Amino acid sequence: MVKVRDVINEFSSYVPGKSKKVIAEKYGVKEDEIIKLGSNENPWGSSPKAKEAIINSIEEMNRYPESNHEYLKELIAEYSGVKQDQVIVTGDGADELLDVIAKTLINPGDEFIVHPPTYMYYEVTFKQYNAKPVYAKWNVEENKVDIQSVLDSITDKTKVIFLCTPNNPTGGLISREDMLKVIEAAPDALVVIDEAYWEFSEVNNIDLLDKYDNILLLRTFSKVLGLAGLRIGYGLSNPEFLEKMNRIKPVFSVTVPSQKAVEATLKDSKYIKESIEKGIKEREFLYESINKIDKIKIYPSKSNYLLMDLHETGFTAAELSEELLKKGIIVRDCTSFYGLDDYYIRASIATHPENEKFVKILKEIIEK
Amino acid sequence: MVKVRDVINEFSSYVPGKSKKVIAEKYGVKEDEIIKLGSNENPWGSSPKAKEAIINSIEEMNRYPESNHEYLKELIAEYSGVKQDQVIVTGDGADELLDVIAKTLINPGDEFIVHPPTYMYYEVTFKQYNAKPVYAKWNVEENKVDIQSVLDSITDKTKVIFLCTPNNPTGGLISREDMLKVIEAAPDALVVIDEAYWEFSEVNNIDLLDKYDNILLLRTFSKVLGLAGLRIGYGLSNPEFLEKMNRIKPVFSVTVPSQKAVEATLKDSKYIKESIEKGIKEREFLYESINKIDKIKIYPSKSNYLLMDLHETGFTAAELSEELLKKGIIVRDCTSFYGLDDYYIRASIATHPENEKFVKILKEIIEK
Repeated sequence: MVKVRDVINEFSSYVPGKSKKVIAEKYGVKEDEIIKLGSNENPWGSSPKAKEAIINSIEEMNRYPESNHEYLKELIAEYSGVKQDQVIVTGDGADELLDVIAKTLINPGDEFIVHPPTYMYYEVTFKQYNAKPVYAKWNVEENKVDIQSVLDSITDKTKVIFLCTPNNPTGGLISREDMLKVIEAAPDALVVIDEAYWEFSEVNNIDLLDKYDNILLLRTFSKVLGLAGLRIGYGLSNPEFLEKMNRIKPVFSVTVPSQKAVEATLKDSKYIKESIEKGIKEREFLYESINKIDKIKIYPSKSNYLLMDLHETGFTAAELSEELLKKGIIVRDCTSFYGLDDYYIRASIATHPENEKFVKILKEIIEK
Repeated sequence: MVKVRDVINEFSSYVPGKSKKVIAEKYGVKEDEIIKLGSNENPWGSSPKAKEAIINSIEEMNRYPESNHEYLKELIAEYSGVKQDQVIVTGDGADELLDVIAKTLINPGDEFIVHPPTYMYYEVTFKQYNAKPVYAKWNVEENKVDIQSVLDSITDKTKVIFLCTPNNPTGGLISREDMLKVIEAAPDALVVIDEAYWEFSEVNNIDLLDKYDNILLLRTFSKVLGLAGLRIGYGLSNPEFLEKMNRIKPVFSVTVPSQKAVEATLKDSKYIKESIEKGIKEREFLYESINKIDKIKIYPSKSNYLLMDLHETGFTAAELSEELLKKGIIVRDCTSFYGLDDYYIRASIATHPENEKFVKILKEIIEK
């Protein structure tokens, strides 16, 4: 048999998450009553206009999608407040964007910096290209990046630095001041500012694009924009760098319904505005409610999820997740996040009735 | 600015194809009368059951797709006549499968063998991984692989050998005998047998899977199965090798509507049977009709497209493609296929009225 690359042996066989169906069967709960707080999706569904656009394109599913995304780029540029040539669109959400960044930049042995606990897929993707992770730190207690640890990690082999803001899974922001320190300290590296959740953060960093040529803002349609199932990501960066990425980007990876749904969603400003407002309101409701449960330490968040520290509860994250599953509630057990121990869970915001039910059940489990 | 990998500079900036809208404006034809013979799609549309399944899943677009494709693998295994653990499913059609193959196998400097003229994306993908193409040959006149040229290309650096059958763009098959010679001559390489169009070919090679551990059959939902716009590919290979590929395969790249459409299409055996039968019938109709145009040499095909040699017509492929565009007909100018000169076009089969119109217009242009 053909010999695989050495690095493949460093990866584990993928273990998929349980489907709703499997959970319903295993825990004896009704499939349609399961509350999904594990994936930071938009709990109110996609834009009605996006749904309509998909249905209207149903006769086009046998045809290849357009490879030219100019019209999508135009809409995204307008939504983001940038110029069209500062936009790149990818399939498979922002995950494909990460892959294309690695493929554009990484020679074996190059280094990239991450600040655990943070989004794990940076590392998964970049290790596949034989890049070497260098670990800076996120200060969980203060919920902010340990900026000195990032600056200290920069070497002449640093190719990419990931700054996640709001940080996943902790919800804290990286300040403008800290961001600038990194961008200016590493002019020959690409600073990827992961803003998958920026709409909830009430800050905006796009003005940096006109000042620095070594940054890329990574965004997605999977979160507030309600299209996780259609897998569309985008990046904002300098046109010269994007032109290089475009040379090797997959040509047809944004499906027909994905393109139609993006277009319709961006034209539905009412949907977007309400999704953000409701998201922030529910986040604050959840924070306030869970903050009243004595034994759980909950961290303030600028995103659509909340991190909870369970050390005082007597439950590990695995145990509490299991108890919640028995009641039909899926949260994210954060044990697999490098930089967190076995006592953290992350819960996404949901609709108000779902959030109320979650708080009630959580309270019952913790306080019983 | 950050320095990109050297290999990126060997790629050109991507030039997208013209959209129907652009063609309609440029050539003054009606957008809905344009006949697409350029991309080898299913001209009769997707399965009605697939369309229905997409519409029925419209409320799920805000949720991540299932990463576990067991139920899809089960259906694909049944359709293909293999076991479930011999199946891998990818997003972005078979193009993602090619990328995952390269990522699993290629160390810089490894060689891969192609037999031009053939599908160009093997080379595009593998060069991105710093693999070195070794060119064997397809004998266009006889429309069969020059098997000796493939065998002569094998070295101890050969990692992957691509055999395309039916070959794109020529339409000829690779015989079982020739295939076996290659598979047995290179036990440490992966022989990728690209069967994107196998349903039209009236042969089946799946029995090889039980005999050899160094082959992968590459297939797709974009052609006879009518789902080009939803980007789903699959591979059939030995379970041990697929387990390695699964470790690094993108987790969520098959969108929600893509999964629903695949499931429904595979359950619609009437649609599949009719698509194959109509496809073969229209291919023979087109072949016979164009064969009567004296100056065009048309090659017999076992696929859903036909290659034409224009040397005697006085037109280059670019000129004839342009003349056809003026009449609203899109064909594939094959000039960009390595191994063909400027005088070949490829046309996909379409519906019977479209094929009749195409033949009539082609005749008028050539014989005027």
